[in-house]
Parts: sequence; C-alpha cells; structure tokens
Amino acid sequence: MPASDFSPAEYATRLARVRARMDRAGIATLIVTDPSNMAWITGYDGWSFYVDQAVIVSAKGEPIWWGRTQDKAGAAQTTWLAPDNLTDWPEAWVQHPDHHPYDHMVELLQDRELDGPIGVEMDNYYFSARCLEQLRAGLPRAEFLDATGLVNWCRAVKSDAELGLMRQAARLSEHMHQVLRENARIEGSKAALVAEVQAAGVRGVDGITGDYPAIAPIAPSGVEASASHITWVERPLAQGEATYFEISGCKSRYHCPTSRTLFAGKVPADIARAEAVVIEASAEAIAAAKPGATCEEVAEHVYAAFRRAGIEKGNRTGYPVGLSYPPDWGERTMSLRPGDTTPLEVGMTFHLMPGLWTPDWGIAITDTFVVTDLGGERLANVPQEIHQFG
Amino acid sequence: MPASDFSPAEYATRLARVRARMDRAGIATLIVTDPSNMAWITGYDGWSFYVDQAVIVSAKGEPIWWGRTQDKAGAAQTTWLAPDNLTDWPEAWVQHPDHHPYDHMVELLQDRELDGPIGVEMDNYYFSARCLEQLRAGLPRAEFLDATGLVNWCRAVKSDAELGLMRQAARLSEHMHQVLRENARIEGSKAALVAEVQAAGVRGVDGITGDYPAIAPIAPSGVEASASHITWVERPLAQGEATYFEISGCKSRYHCPTSRTLFAGKVPADIARAEAVVIEASAEAIAAAKPGATCEEVAEHVYAAFRRAGIEKGNRTGYPVGLSYPPDWGERTMSLRPGDTTPLEVGMTFHLMPGLWTPDWGIAITDTFVVTDLGGERLANVPQEIHQFG
Repeated sequence: MPASDFSPAEYATRLARVRARMDRAGIATLIVTDPSNMAWITGYDGWSFYVDQAVIVSAKGEPIWWGRTQDKAGAAQTTWLAPDNLTDWPEAWVQHPDHHPYDHMVELLQDRELDGPIGVEMDNYYFSARCLEQLRAGLPRAEFLDATGLVNWCRAVKSDAELGLMRQAARLSEHMHQVLRENARIEGSKAALVAEVQAAGVRGVDGITGDYPAIAPIAPSGVEASASHITWVERPLAQGEATYFEISGCKSRYHCPTSRTLFAGKVPADIARAEAVVIEASAEAIAAAKPGATCEEVAEHVYAAFRRAGIEKGNRTGYPVGLSYPPDWGERTMSLRPGDTTPLEVGMTFHLMPGLWTPDWGIAITDTFVVTDLGGERLANVPQEIHQFG
Repeated sequence: MPASDFSPAEYATRLARVRARMDRAGIATLIVTDPSNMAWITGYDGWSFYVDQAVIVSAKGEPIWWGRTQDKAGAAQTTWLAPDNLTDWPEAWVQHPDHHPYDHMVELLQDRELDGPIGVEMDNYYFSARCLEQLRAGLPRAEFLDATGLVNWCRAVKSDAELGLMRQAARLSEHMHQVLRENARIEGSKAALVAEVQAAGVRGVDGITGDYPAIAPIAPSGVEASASHITWVERPLAQGEATYFEISGCKSRYHCPTSRTLFAGKVPADIARAEAVVIEASAEAIAAAKPGATCEEVAEHVYAAFRRAGIEKGNRTGYPVGLSYPPDWGERTMSLRPGDTTPLEVGMTFHLMPGLWTPDWGIAITDTFVVTDLGGERLANVPQEIHQFG
C-alpha cells in the first residue's frame, strides 16, 4: 500500500481518531511500532520491520517516520509525509552490539521537544524489552504509558476504501481456493499444491494481483492437522486424510482469511458430522453479526451449535482482520469469545474460526465477514463443504 | 524442520554449547523466545510465534517447551522432548486484555524450581517490553540478565547436517533464479513473475521441495529500487529499468539468500560499471573468507573494490545466515563491517551483500558462502551478471 491507495481526507480522519484516543489515554507523544499501525497512519510499506522503526504522533503537525537510513527512500516513496518528517538513525547502527537505535529515538524526541507522557506499544513484536530500557535510560524523567492496541482499535471499523481492498483480497482468496480444488490429487506433492495456491494469490485473477499475506499457508494433513499451526511438510497427500488450508489473499496489505478442508477419498462419518456442525455454526454466527450484538453473543452461536452436537469447544472462535504485516493477520483487539462484550459496529471485519481439532484429525472451515445492518456478509464466496478428491 | 532432521547426538551437542555460554554468562535459567533458537534447540516448528512461546533451558534435564494449549500437539509432533516437558498456558488467554501468558511462565518457573539469574532475549521480536514487566512483577527477587544473541552465537558454525540443508536451499535458490531469467518479459506483470519465482522455490527441483523463506521476495524496479526493502507493486516491468530480486530458497527453515539484478533493455554504462565493481568486490571478499580472517577484513575487500571505482559504500556488507523464521533470515550476531573483529571459522555461513543504491536506481548481486580452509565457497551457483531481457 503506498499512501496513494487512500485520500488525504481519509488519512486526516485516521489521525484524528488516533489523537482522540491519545487524548483520552493522557498520552502526549505516541510511538507507534506495529508495522500495520505505521502503514495505516502514514502509508509506509516495506519489509523493513526486522530493524527498529516507528511513526511518532503528537498533538500537532504531521506524524514523523523514523527508521534506518537505508529505508528513508522507501518512506519517501510510500508515505504522504513531508521530507522534513522522515527521520533516520545511522545505518552503521544496524544490529550493532555497541549502539541501539532507541538512543537516536531519545535524541529525536528531545530535538523535536516531544514531551511525555509517552505512549509505547508495550506488547508488540516490534517493540522489544530492550527498546523500553533504552528509552527509560535516555529519558529518566519521562512517564511511559502502555498504548498497546490504541491504534489497532482505531482500525476496527473499515472505511469504504479499505473494504474495497478487502473485497479485492476476497477475490484472490476465492481464486486460491478454486486453484486448490482443481489441483488436489492423491499422491500429489503437498509442496506442489502449496506452490500453486500461493502463486494464484500473487498472480491474481481478473486483473487483481496480490501481495504476500501476513501468515504463510497453514496446511497440515491427517494427524498433523490435530496441531493448529503446522505449515507444510514434504510428503504426498494420502488416502483417508483430511488436509486443511488456512490461507488468505492479500491486496495492498489487506486480507481476507479463508480456510477450507480437503479429504482424500470418501469423508468418514465422524468428519462429515463435524463438517455439518461447523457449517451450521458458521451460518448462525454470521447471521447474528448485526450492529449492537456483542462479540460474545456472536461467539455463543458457534458454541451453541457445537453443544447441540455434543462438542465442547474451548478456544476463541474469531478475531478482527484487515491491514496486516507478519507474523499475524489478526488485529489483536476484540475476540469472538465469552467475556468480550464489545458491541459490533457496521464496517467491522472479522475472521470467524469455527475449527475443530481432535487428537486424530482437524478441520477448519473459516470465513471473513463484514458487519452490516442485515448481519454479517461473507466477503469471499467459496463453497464451504469439504472437497473430496481422488 | 521436525527434530528428526538431526541426530540426538547433534541436539546434545547444541544443548552443551548453549549451557557452556550460559555458564560463562552466569545464567542459571535461560528463556529462549527467538523461534529460530527454539527450533535449533528442540526442533520445534510451526507458525505460532505470533503468540508468546518459549523454550526454557537450565543446567540439568531436557529443555522445556512452553506455548499455548492449541500448539502443544505441534510441539509433540516436531520436538524431541518428552511429553512432561511440553507445557502450556491456557488457551483462553490468547490475546486477552485481562491475562498475560507470562503470568503462567512465572508459575512454571516456580513450580519447576528454576532459579535466577534468568537470561532473557531482551532485544528480540518475540519478547516484548510487556513480557519482561510481567516477569519482573511476578518474580520481584529474581535477577534478569540480557541473553540477546546467546543462542544465535551458538548457531554460527554449522554442522554437516545443517550445511546439507543449506546446500539443498542453494539448489532451490538456483532454480528460482533460473525461473526468474526464463520468465522476465518487458511489459509482463511483476506480480506474475514473483508468483513464478516463489512457486519454483516451494515446488522445488530434483526432488527437493521448499518451505516459506523468512523474508518475502524483495523486488523493486527503477527508482523504487533506490529503496532497499520494497517488495513488489502492481505494475509491469518497464523498458530501461533495473529490477533486483532478493530471494532465498528455504529447506527445513535453512536459507541461502541470493540476489540478482535484471535489466529491461540494454544496460547503460553507469549501471554496467557498478555491476563490474560489485562482481569484483564479491569475488575478492569471498576469496578472503578464510579461517582467522576477521569480519572487518572480509568487508574491507568489498569497500576497497568500491573505492577503486570511486564509490564510498557506507552500510554493512554481510551477515550470517542459516536457520530462520520471519521477519529476518540474518542471525543478528556478527556483521561484515568495520569494527567487527570476530575471526571466521570453518563452517560459518554468510550472506555477502555488495549492493549499490543510488537516488535513481539500485542493483544487488549477493551470495551466500560457507567458510572453508581455502576461502569462502559460494553455495548457489547462479550467474552473477545482470540479466538483460527484452
């Protein structure tokens, strides 16, 4: 996503939303390190999050992009920020034992007279324990407040432009699953199948090309599928095994996760029963996803359908999705599970995950939906039934 | 990589290396959160690093795997650890506002009577500022020591089995670049080309299939290529533009990064001069990579070749590679740059990066080599010259 995917007015609205939450939290200066949040505020895009980088937001003026020197050209190309607000720490400090980029951050905050309280994303992949230590050492009088999720919450309701990109991602997800169904063969190599599906998502369909999704294809088979985050291993698809593919198209970093299950041979009775329950649970939960319904109420439709079939399901059954970078395509705010009383709003988007894992097999039939006045609308139109082949 | 990629003896050697370094650092209990380090010690594999997980090493007994309940089956499938040493925090705590997995870690350390000093990877993507706060709050009397890089340094010299996997990754990198050269077309879609190259790396060649690399394809064109971490955008390859592909085959999580540059049309004189310098710099640096030579001495061969051509190159020119998970395929220990006096040893593996970025274009011709008594040996045999097409 270069910033040009969205209008200046949209970026202004986003910034206003962030500042309103900063205000409520008593944060004067916000250091945003989550790459998804950085991109949402400024348009910044690049695989540079393996070194320290941030976007700094205060009450006035443009945000400031901060990263290593070598990535400044990428910031100039992808963000809407003025050159003065692209700042860089010395290239020679990259992964250097004697220097830490956050010492430069301290200087930058002082130079620009950015005061505390300073909000930091305490529980984020890209803000390490060491980053906080360096800030505390460099700014001993500053107050630090936990701003984990602050920007993520601002992203919950999608704009029309964002939904447009998610609908394009949905076209990619549909195409990926079609290629999956067409190419699944008994004794065929799973790696070859993954290669086809991944290529379909990037090459795209109907003039829509794709980006790299925030999660690599999860594609376990048979007993492996009793574990939930196995990618793929070097072996053929074998007769009598269920394989599920948890995959997503990705357009300008917006996702539409969609999982489906394949079965090599005839689906046995226990898996067929599970399939029926999962499809019923999915339909009932999505229908219930109207504005004002809470996350736990939507989730309860899944659990209730499972209970009617005599299955106790413990884990959460969905989470918000949209703009994301590795390692997670979830937004890490709400969850569809007991105890989460957040009311849904029109334009929120969720990945509904009514998966079932037993000690012997696992199936996943999952969909991304947007909340509308009439209930949830599935974004990708992919047949939900287990695909039998061979 | 399931643990079965390596012998029990190899895992025993790895653990002994880690314990020797723990001993020198005065660490009694080590919490390992880097997924590459977790995998190297136990074989654990899965795309589960988006939630808190760790491997705990103390002076005696097996390491302990720790993660969410849903991932325990994956740990049983992929690690060599006994079931008693697979421990899990409650599934209901996943990304939950009122619970933090590290509160469970505190209980686990207490239950198992694992004392301090406790080593933590302070500067790692998967150990957030919040993780440390929870540990400090739960164990107020414990001493915490920074163990960033401790296990990474143990991984620097590769075993024969590891080199075997890197050589398979090299076959994949060769194949990916061959597919790239064969498929580059003027006005062809860059996304389609990325799709082909990525698929080639996963589908594989000569019976070797591939995994997802730790970094998505970096593939900027023309002026975009002046920025170093742009992935790909939706536009055709255009006449008169250089595009470089920084890509890697990945076998059982072992990498062999290799970058090459393509040019649509006839390479202009300034880029041809840069190409010649980069190829010369690469050859001289790799030849010098003998045991006992230091990182900075190897790097100096690159800088010297550039200086002879009147080019000042500032950034580092290489780093160790091997086993990795997103977002980085580097090991984050040594760097090939001035000031790094680490002596090379036989079996160390580096990604040599003599890239050149100007305000108008960028080229990258990079290779992975292993240190041998005779100097560096390039792992992937890919023609270094800029590939002209169209």
